[in-house]
Amino acid sequence: MSEQYAAIKKLCYDANMQLPKLGLVLFTFGNVSVADREKKIFAIKPSGVPYEELSVDKMVIVDFDGNVVEGSLRPSSDTKTHAVLYKHWEKIGSIVHTHSTYATAWAQSLRDIPIYGTTHADHTTVDIPCAAPMDDAMIKGNYEYETGFQVMNCFRDKGLSYEEVEMMIVGNHAPFTWGESADKAVYNAAVLERIAQMAWLTEQINTKAPRLKEALIKKHYERKHGPDSYYGQ
Amino acid sequence: MSEQYAAIKKLCYDANMQLPKLGLVLFTFGNVSVADREKKIFAIKPSGVPYEELSVDKMVIVDFDGNVVEGSLRPSSDTKTHAVLYKHWEKIGSIVHTHSTYATAWAQSLRDIPIYGTTHADHTTVDIPCAAPMDDAMIKGNYEYETGFQVMNCFRDKGLSYEEVEMMIVGNHAPFTWGESADKAVYNAAVLERIAQMAWLTEQINTKAPRLKEALIKKHYERKHGPDSYYGQ
Amino acid sequence: MSEQYAAIKKLCYDANMQLPKLGLVLFTFGNVSVADREKKIFAIKPSGVPYEELSVDKMVIVDFDGNVVEGSLRPSSDTKTHAVLYKHWEKIGSIVHTHSTYATAWAQSLRDIPIYGTTHADHTTVDIPCAAPMDDAMIKGNYEYETGFQVMNCFRDKGLSYEEVEMMIVGNHAPFTWGESADKAVYNAAVLERIAQMAWLTEQINTKAPRLKEALIKKHYERKHGPDSYYGQ
Amino acid sequence: MSEQYAAIKKLCYDANMQLPKLGLVLFTFGNVSVADREKKIFAIKPSGVPYEELSVDKMVIVDFDGNVVEGSLRPSSDTKTHAVLYKHWEKIGSIVHTHSTYATAWAQSLRDIPIYGTTHADHTTVDIPCAAPMDDAMIKGNYEYETGFQVMNCFRDKGLSYEEVEMMIVGNHAPFTWGESADKAVYNAAVLERIAQMAWLTEQINTKAPRLKEALIKKHYERKHGPDSYYGQ
Repeated sequence: MSEQYAAIKKLCYDANMQLPKLGLVLFTFGNVSVADREKKIFAIKPSGVPYEELSVDKMVIVDFDGNVVEGSLRPSSDTKTHAVLYKHWEKIGSIVHTHSTYATAWAQSLRDIPIYGTTHADHTTVDIPCAAPMDDAMIKGNYEYETGFQVMNCFRDKGLSYEEVEMMIVGNHAPFTWGESADKAVYNAAVLERIAQMAWLTEQINTKAPRLKEALIKKHYERKHGPDSYYGQ
Repeated sequence: MSEQYAAIKKLCYDANMQLPKLGLVLFTFGNVSVADREKKIFAIKPSGVPYEELSVDKMVIVDFDGNVVEGSLRPSSDTKTHAVLYKHWEKIGSIVHTHSTYATAWAQSLRDIPIYGTTHADHTTVDIPCAAPMDDAMIKGNYEYETGFQVMNCFRDKGLSYEEVEMMIVGNHAPFTWGESADKAVYNAAVLERIAQMAWLTEQINTKAPRLKEALIKKHYERKHGPDSYYGQ
Repeated sequence: MSEQYAAIKKLCYDANMQLPKLGLVLFTFGNVSVADREKKIFAIKPSGVPYEELSVDKMVIVDFDGNVVEGSLRPSSDTKTHAVLYKHWEKIGSIVHTHSTYATAWAQSLRDIPIYGTTHADHTTVDIPCAAPMDDAMIKGNYEYETGFQVMNCFRDKGLSYEEVEMMIVGNHAPFTWGESADKAVYNAAVLERIAQMAWLTEQINTKAPRLKEALIKKHYERKHGPDSYYGQ
Repeated sequence: MSEQYAAIKKLCYDANMQLPKLGLVLFTFGNVSVADREKKIFAIKPSGVPYEELSVDKMVIVDFDGNVVEGSLRPSSDTKTHAVLYKHWEKIGSIVHTHSTYATAWAQSLRDIPIYGTTHADHTTVDIPCAAPMDDAMIKGNYEYETGFQVMNCFRDKGLSYEEVEMMIVGNHAPFTWGESADKAVYNAAVLERIAQMAWLTEQINTKAPRLKEALIKKHYERKHGPDSYYGQ
């Protein structure tokens, strides 16, 4: 293992190992990547390797065009999706993909997750966007590459910023989250799963539950984000 | 750390550490405070610090007007809500705020939690009250301070006593519970979560499930509370 | 601690400690008793004592009329219900009472749990009976004593045998199970909880799910019970 | 214990012990068998023995007609179902039967599990088939033997291949899964349970959720299976 990628592999390994601890993956249904923006590469989990068999040196180094730079194992089958996102969304430092139960159920339902409460508003001011299913030509083409564009097109069409909204679900598929750091991207994956569960329950308890009103959305988001935030240290 | 607050900080630390063990918090979504009525202060969790990084000396001491008395970290962003409640509800010894899944879903649904069974009646004789969302002027003002009044106004408007009903949900937001001691307030947070889950399931199984009848409400509450109680040692 | 009750107290303690392990109790919401038919007494959990503070010598010995025979702590507040059942149902060796989530939700829904599959039929041939709520005069009287009769009246009115059907739910309240031994009664409590969860899900997935047909009910029950059973060793 | 079956018994024991770890069984509600195609036998869990009391030498060796070849304990009551499947489906190396909660709820609902997303499509291209309940004559006859035919008839009637679809649910009863190896059969049992949970949630969130479109089904299945697969190492 070359020395130059040791640190980024370690970050990637640690982040991947958080997924089973947080109950976000069954078997190998998930992956985390972490980018080194200076070196223009990212480290990502190898494909189909069980979490208990992972180790730091098994992480694969890939460039932003999806080419393997270092590593003896095949990278995650979703690698091209990660590469596309890193290439075009230049401030992302880490990406997480899981098939976590509640977020995936919303994705399968082809619905945005409505903003019903302050737990949601603490993290984003909009409904969690659900990207429309890909058209058949894109599916038959370079599928994982196109998935990256499916994610970005969703944000473009809905007028969202990836810097403000760090989580989404791909229709029929499953969630993607990201952030400046691996810790933040993994945190967002766990938060999305909880928000998805609570939104489902909210609709079960009250089929006419209203969306959170704008004043509360704004207040809670600003508590945690922006120049006047006062949450945390 | 000054000696005079050592005991209350320890109580506060221990109570906060119970929340993840009871499955009531994800990451930092919750806080416990414990009051020292003689010294007119309370200890509270610092803002945004992960539970695994908490320690006794990180607890922050705050007075009943919300001013920090001792502590190098910023207190919980909900501190002013706690301060208002301690100031006006003079027999409360501890307050717990969580975003526990089922209770929060009810809060997001803007519904009181109906009393459907004896598990509920063992703890309170009324539906768990849901405070109406705050009006926009209050939200834009001193939000956390106003949340305290939102809680108290709910009790005033519904004619409830905070000494008899030690749990509630803030509409669109999440639950608050309290009690004479930290153990009791934390216990109430866990009980509320279970009651919320059972009430949801009850309505799923029978959309016309009736409220518990008065004779049973009275009987179960009196088993555990009041001069003729005979539960416990 | 007198020697003569040492063995029955140990059985009772061990059985009570299984409840939190099986996820059937929150805090002190449950109790197990174990009878010694020769001595005409049963051992039962003390009232309101947390599971982590239980010990063998804290178990209380009570006779079949509900009088404490030995023990310095107050017995479970449900003791008279246990006593009535031991007195009238002479082949019961152990009784379990919990507020387990799904079974309690069915109790609050005031519905029998329909027999939808072989998991249910492996244990009993009928819908799990839900006893109608007590009338107000009985509630105001000797409540826990009357609860025993509420359970027995339910079986009498529905023409059920307590030897064949070892589980039921008390309307508005929670489940009771029993068996020849403590292990069997605790096993039944866990099985009932799972059956209750599955029956709820079955109705969610198919609102017109049919009751299991008689030939399958008979076959599965006879696999595990009766002269031609061939399940187990 | 004869040496010739030592290896297959060990495989069978290890596979059975995975079921409780994966949350797929309560008490003894499940069993795994593993075949040795050369010796024309399979090893299977003994009937009704708790998982914590299992050991390698307690596994029972049975031939493909259901006759015990070696072992002092009675084999699983479902042994004849396993035998029938091994005899007729010649490429199966292992079979798993559980009463896992969500898959069993679908079985009780008598519905195929619709393919709603890529998590499902990663494993099979069709709805998970639900075998129609057995007719009464078969139930009264050689029940477990007939269950094997019930499974196979379901596949024949729906035109499915057991090599492509390695999981199904028996109506009113519970799931069966299989695979070339014990690891694969157990993996399939856990995947089926998760797919069943997600499909239920999907319908809860959107009562009109559409089936996954064919292009996505084909793409995801081919990512993991067939000559052009590129998932895993």
